[in-house]
Amino acid sequence: MPDANRQIVLDQLPQGRLLAEHFRLTESEPPRPGAGEALLRTRYISLDAANRAWMQGATYRSALNAGQVMAGGALAEVVEADSPDLKPGDLVFADTGWQDYAVLPAKRLSKLPNLQPATHLLSVYGVAGLTAYFGLLECGRPKAGETVVVSAAAGSVGSLVGQIAKIKGCRAVGIAGGEEKGRWLTGELGFDQAIDYKAGDFKKQIRELGGIDVYFDNVGGDVFEACLFAMNTFGRIACCGAVSQYDGTAPQHGPRGVPGLIVTKRLTLQGFIMSDFAEKNDQALADLQSWVASGQLKVQEDVIDGFENLPQALVGLLAGENRGKRMVKVS
Amino acid sequence: MPDANRQIVLDQLPQGRLLAEHFRLTESEPPRPGAGEALLRTRYISLDAANRAWMQGATYRSALNAGQVMAGGALAEVVEADSPDLKPGDLVFADTGWQDYAVLPAKRLSKLPNLQPATHLLSVYGVAGLTAYFGLLECGRPKAGETVVVSAAAGSVGSLVGQIAKIKGCRAVGIAGGEEKGRWLTGELGFDQAIDYKAGDFKKQIRELGGIDVYFDNVGGDVFEACLFAMNTFGRIACCGAVSQYDGTAPQHGPRGVPGLIVTKRLTLQGFIMSDFAEKNDQALADLQSWVASGQLKVQEDVIDGFENLPQALVGLLAGENRGKRMVKVS
Repeated sequence: MPDANRQIVLDQLPQGRLLAEHFRLTESEPPRPGAGEALLRTRYISLDAANRAWMQGATYRSALNAGQVMAGGALAEVVEADSPDLKPGDLVFADTGWQDYAVLPAKRLSKLPNLQPATHLLSVYGVAGLTAYFGLLECGRPKAGETVVVSAAAGSVGSLVGQIAKIKGCRAVGIAGGEEKGRWLTGELGFDQAIDYKAGDFKKQIRELGGIDVYFDNVGGDVFEACLFAMNTFGRIACCGAVSQYDGTAPQHGPRGVPGLIVTKRLTLQGFIMSDFAEKNDQALADLQSWVASGQLKVQEDVIDGFENLPQALVGLLAGENRGKRMVKVS
Repeated sequence: MPDANRQIVLDQLPQGRLLAEHFRLTESEPPRPGAGEALLRTRYISLDAANRAWMQGATYRSALNAGQVMAGGALAEVVEADSPDLKPGDLVFADTGWQDYAVLPAKRLSKLPNLQPATHLLSVYGVAGLTAYFGLLECGRPKAGETVVVSAAAGSVGSLVGQIAKIKGCRAVGIAGGEEKGRWLTGELGFDQAIDYKAGDFKKQIRELGGIDVYFDNVGGDVFEACLFAMNTFGRIACCGAVSQYDGTAPQHGPRGVPGLIVTKRLTLQGFIMSDFAEKNDQALADLQSWVASGQLKVQEDVIDGFENLPQALVGLLAGENRGKRMVKVS
């Protein structure tokens, strides 16, 4: 049995920008599983913009409070489980929080397939991959030849959205910060075009796209507004997140053009999280696996070593320093 | 043949609020139809909030310019037509503009059924009725037992939306200005509840509804924002218009919560105009006729007599003085 459980606690709720100082490292007794429970050891902890959103209040999960172990999903290994479906060594995806060990009800856990590399279970075959797949195909409903624009395009979800758009015969445009990310999107991932949202002529570049059919929004704010004004009639906006709005105080205003442009352009905006489409997971995973196997879908992972680096890894993700799926290797 | 054609011209584009003084009455030679054309005499001209929106710029139709005959739809009678499908006396709905006579390509016109009263062809069996029907049923997709909220509820569209929601087994809540309209909605039209958007505790009343499943938005602005914050998970917003935004300068900001709440509540917002669903018109008209015949759907019309009263009738509509469908009887 383990003899210590490192934990990272959200020490204070941030008022403005999140800092590593808002967290503190502590240690506790390892938890012990009871009837119907499983003891898990975290292997890789997922870093997501949503981690920051949970600090702002209740979303699709309850709000985080100061003093709690920081919440987060992880790829974890079963140490022991009171369940016929789980045995030691099995891998699961679970809301372990930022700690070495966690106890969870066994019936909420499902054994993951034995895929290599295992980190893909947190990226392309995990939340990021399913979010990109369902958001684009179910909410965006792109048709071949259409223009698909995705923001936070160098991130874990965005980098997959653009590639899936290409697989579906669309023109893929990625919005990301900085020229280097742009070169990576067009050079390595096969996007047709990249637009730097930090460029002075950003709005002009968006206007000059000649009309957007599907906008996959990860950021909200000014980028959302610019794309809204450039949508084609009957365009679709998949609302996946609003990372530009998470790391600070709540914005005073929303984007202009709502709801006026939604009416005149007859747009559909749909908010979603990937679990809304859980009944289609098997098909999604089969498609993603075949695209990865054929080389059509490239998977970029950004793995940081060391449990103690979790706070800075999240702060850096919110500042846009990652490419692809960021995670911290714990054990 | 007629010997004069009264016309109302949009003399100046309004910068702020629209006034009757922005229009002027003039007279011209009656137009003469050529090959493939029809000469129409307007009987009833429809007044709509959209008339004002067209002055703000291109929408789903090109923008209006100063010096043009004011645009508008009308119930009109065929005087003569170079077409095998139209004969003198037939009624059509056409974009005649504000004038006694108009010439239009005959192939764009379809003969309307001979219903009594004929004014219903402009209200429940016209744009208003089809807008209410398609917006609620196709975009809102209400299920029995759900809470449906509609703004501008005493208007031509809103008054039908709430009644159709009741027919579908929903709880219908209407937002309108003033207690008198509210009493009419609940007393005469069978809405379950009315909320006065001018009341000091308006937002509190919206919050206390206990969650909105379908919001049919005719107004945009603060009312839209209040309802957005009160939506239930997986709620639908039918975006029909933004009358609060039409009569003035363009707003500087949109509602808060966009797109953040769309994501966390997994909402669907859909903009539409009734012609988007034209392939389902027959079913819609059959349903509307059967509900009117059975007394389940009450039709309120606000008919103003006299061509010269058109400008003031539109100004008054934008100020919310009408109940039900406003139109001006021309001949």
